[in-house]
Amino acid sequence: MGDGAASDEFDVIVIGGGPAGENAAQYAIAGSDRTAALVERELVGGECSYWACMPSKALLTPVHFLDRARHLRGITGTGIDLDAVLARRDDFTAHHADTGQVAWAQSVGVAVIRGAGALAGDRRVRVGDRELIARQAVVLATGSTALIPDVPGLRAALPWISRDVTNLRELPRRVLILGGGVVACEAATWLSAFGAAVTMVVRGDRLLGGMEPFAGERVASALAERGVEIRFGAGLDAVTRTSPAATGAGRIHGGPVTATVGGTVLEADELVVATGRAPATAGLGLATVGLDDRAVAVDDHLTAIGVAGSWLYAVGDVTGRNLLTHMGKYQARVCGDVIAARARGGPLDGPRYRATADHGAVPAVVFSAPEVATVGRTEQAARTAGFTVVAVELDISVAGSALLRDDYAGHAKLVVDRSTGRLLGATFVGPDVGELLQAATVAVVGEIPVEQLWHAVPAYPTVSEVWLRLLEKLRDR
Amino acid sequence: MGDGAASDEFDVIVIGGGPAGENAAQYAIAGSDRTAALVERELVGGECSYWACMPSKALLTPVHFLDRARHLRGITGTGIDLDAVLARRDDFTAHHADTGQVAWAQSVGVAVIRGAGALAGDRRVRVGDRELIARQAVVLATGSTALIPDVPGLRAALPWISRDVTNLRELPRRVLILGGGVVACEAATWLSAFGAAVTMVVRGDRLLGGMEPFAGERVASALAERGVEIRFGAGLDAVTRTSPAATGAGRIHGGPVTATVGGTVLEADELVVATGRAPATAGLGLATVGLDDRAVAVDDHLTAIGVAGSWLYAVGDVTGRNLLTHMGKYQARVCGDVIAARARGGPLDGPRYRATADHGAVPAVVFSAPEVATVGRTEQAARTAGFTVVAVELDISVAGSALLRDDYAGHAKLVVDRSTGRLLGATFVGPDVGELLQAATVAVVGEIPVEQLWHAVPAYPTVSEVWLRLLEKLRDR
Repeated sequence: MGDGAASDEFDVIVIGGGPAGENAAQYAIAGSDRTAALVERELVGGECSYWACMPSKALLTPVHFLDRARHLRGITGTGIDLDAVLARRDDFTAHHADTGQVAWAQSVGVAVIRGAGALAGDRRVRVGDRELIARQAVVLATGSTALIPDVPGLRAALPWISRDVTNLRELPRRVLILGGGVVACEAATWLSAFGAAVTMVVRGDRLLGGMEPFAGERVASALAERGVEIRFGAGLDAVTRTSPAATGAGRIHGGPVTATVGGTVLEADELVVATGRAPATAGLGLATVGLDDRAVAVDDHLTAIGVAGSWLYAVGDVTGRNLLTHMGKYQARVCGDVIAARARGGPLDGPRYRATADHGAVPAVVFSAPEVATVGRTEQAARTAGFTVVAVELDISVAGSALLRDDYAGHAKLVVDRSTGRLLGATFVGPDVGELLQAATVAVVGEIPVEQLWHAVPAYPTVSEVWLRLLEKLRDR
Repeated sequence: MGDGAASDEFDVIVIGGGPAGENAAQYAIAGSDRTAALVERELVGGECSYWACMPSKALLTPVHFLDRARHLRGITGTGIDLDAVLARRDDFTAHHADTGQVAWAQSVGVAVIRGAGALAGDRRVRVGDRELIARQAVVLATGSTALIPDVPGLRAALPWISRDVTNLRELPRRVLILGGGVVACEAATWLSAFGAAVTMVVRGDRLLGGMEPFAGERVASALAERGVEIRFGAGLDAVTRTSPAATGAGRIHGGPVTATVGGTVLEADELVVATGRAPATAGLGLATVGLDDRAVAVDDHLTAIGVAGSWLYAVGDVTGRNLLTHMGKYQARVCGDVIAARARGGPLDGPRYRATADHGAVPAVVFSAPEVATVGRTEQAARTAGFTVVAVELDISVAGSALLRDDYAGHAKLVVDRSTGRLLGATFVGPDVGELLQAATVAVVGEIPVEQLWHAVPAYPTVSEVWLRLLEKLRDR
């Protein structure tokens, strides 16, 4: 069988071998002689490794770099070699071979079983003809799949989804992107940087809904400067395509696409659907344990709600908690620790056993240009949650930002609980702000009063000095 | 007189108009109708703005950028135009005009008085023929000056000091650098990147003494790869120079320099002395208030120790506490708040009134290539201070670092107090690690147990994910 799994019985069975599943399996058996199996129907490593985070960031790194080169006096002649960028991207996806990931799983004692796993009742998992038994726990980590809205002609047109645009092999001359969220903004960034004429069709009135409004506004302005046309408040009414063809991921899927958007007819060489993702529960056998086919609701121990016996867990996108790789991995670490503690018969009374960060301390970085980095609650969300807040915001303009590039433009905002003085949320927009976020995440999680943050001196001259400006502004309130 | 100071009497007089002096004056009178004067003998803005932080970082930014370009597949043709880099550097030093800084001081209600200020007894400051009276406080913020060691022929050779090498106008073909600290390492980085043949003469057995040993080791390796020759355990015995000439800052100060180093004779076109700095107390009139000419010792309210009446303060390098611009500014903010509180007759009982970060929470970034970023205590320092520590370290190797450049090489270390689980110190070495530091500084200042840091999830894929690896390693201990 070649999967290292001679037995059909394991202490822990994880369905879905993405980053969350891998971590759950690893943590659940770490330092013990218990056994775990990882059931994966595609590639061990999951969506993130081959079709999402890794290829998209590999495409965006050179774009950000080039941007900076063009705005740093003294630097000459920087260009981009698209073929080399795509080749580097392919190295980051290991050319869609999961040999390395499988070797890693086996090195930490996790057996890999190929196939689509499904629940088959209490502690039972079916993989093809095979029925596996979990002595202790089953973890669902199947992730999510791209949503394709129900628009006449859309499915028949074989539009690109995120998997295609991250695995870009042919650059369409004209691209229509449906959506205004993270995937849409990032894809518009690299496609336009590589030379495509991009039009975004956005249902709402801004990009990056759910974040502080200035984030979407700044990304929209930057995209417009790159020549991207953004149609807000617009929906796709119908699509037709000349000879659609399943040419493979990242290749143009046929002839020109004609799309009707609010009465206007737009033509493009490819259409990218980036309208969100849904938990991947189809065919997962949830009915066999009494659950319906929606996101698998879990408590803070990542234990499925509504299933007796504390044997069923879920982590990552399939829970619908936070559709972010790092939060899936975080949940998986907590879940694995919970499973291990329960196996030892130990109590679950430490902070280690609760995925508390899922509530109010979720970091996210959008690798658009400018980048957007956010953690915790927006001002609006904090008010809605009943907090009395003080919010301060300002343009990022410190020595460190001026040094970084000649025309540095960024903006930052802190949301503070007026009654406790604790940070509830932070948002940074600007070039390379992604690495500024961890300080805010530590402050939110650590529940440090801003009065104490005053003594966390930023080194001069770094961009982190924006903290000083923000805290000075808070003092004045 | 053109200094906006018609009166000779002020509530607060600050001697020294660098960043620390500016902040002390601003904070001391903010939101009040009290008056402050800033006495400056050179340029308002100080060493940092014209001769240290700003010009050095302006020289290093393109060097770091070029480094990255050469190690990011897909990026082509990046070069550097030295004249443009020097011109950009000159813009960052405002071409040594302090018009902008003077305008800023006046905009916050601080009068600027040109001249060398000196104490002339209790609450008296002499500037040339003029005697000023401070109704409440005098703040000493005169900074520090470069030390020139007592080596035969050295002073007569007119060596470069940090001011010359940051204000580089002629690139010497062969440069000898005396010293192995921050200034020496940074100067060696840009001089070698611009094409000079650099030899460092280092008294000790490593670079960046006082930091974790791996920091200096990694910087030394990188400098060696750039062709820099480093002579450890070596001292300068004697120097001779053909026709030394005071040609101005950043210009070669005469003919070839011959230096005897441990019996070997080395020849260079310029010699840079970077062997440390001493508090600038000469001529400051400290004897008139009963102090000697050493660093001005202060308590955590930045109030001079040994002077009755709580009217004399000192901030920045002249205190000898921490010779870093951002710590000087930090002390100045606290000092200004203390002066303001005392003027109001209020108590000094909040955390705002104590410069606690000076003890155990000092961040520093060395902008060498690789960068070094450090906060708090090294493992050795923590042990010496009596802590029982757990230390973990590892090479920085996460998705975010691999994306950043093809050959990313970095190292990180955390030092944790075993009894409280709190972070005592952190060190990061690698490309662009400067912005990673603030998260560690927040954790150190916030006294957050590492068990709680576990829930500060780093966003994927950022370099900050190194936190996860470090915390995982700590768990295993």
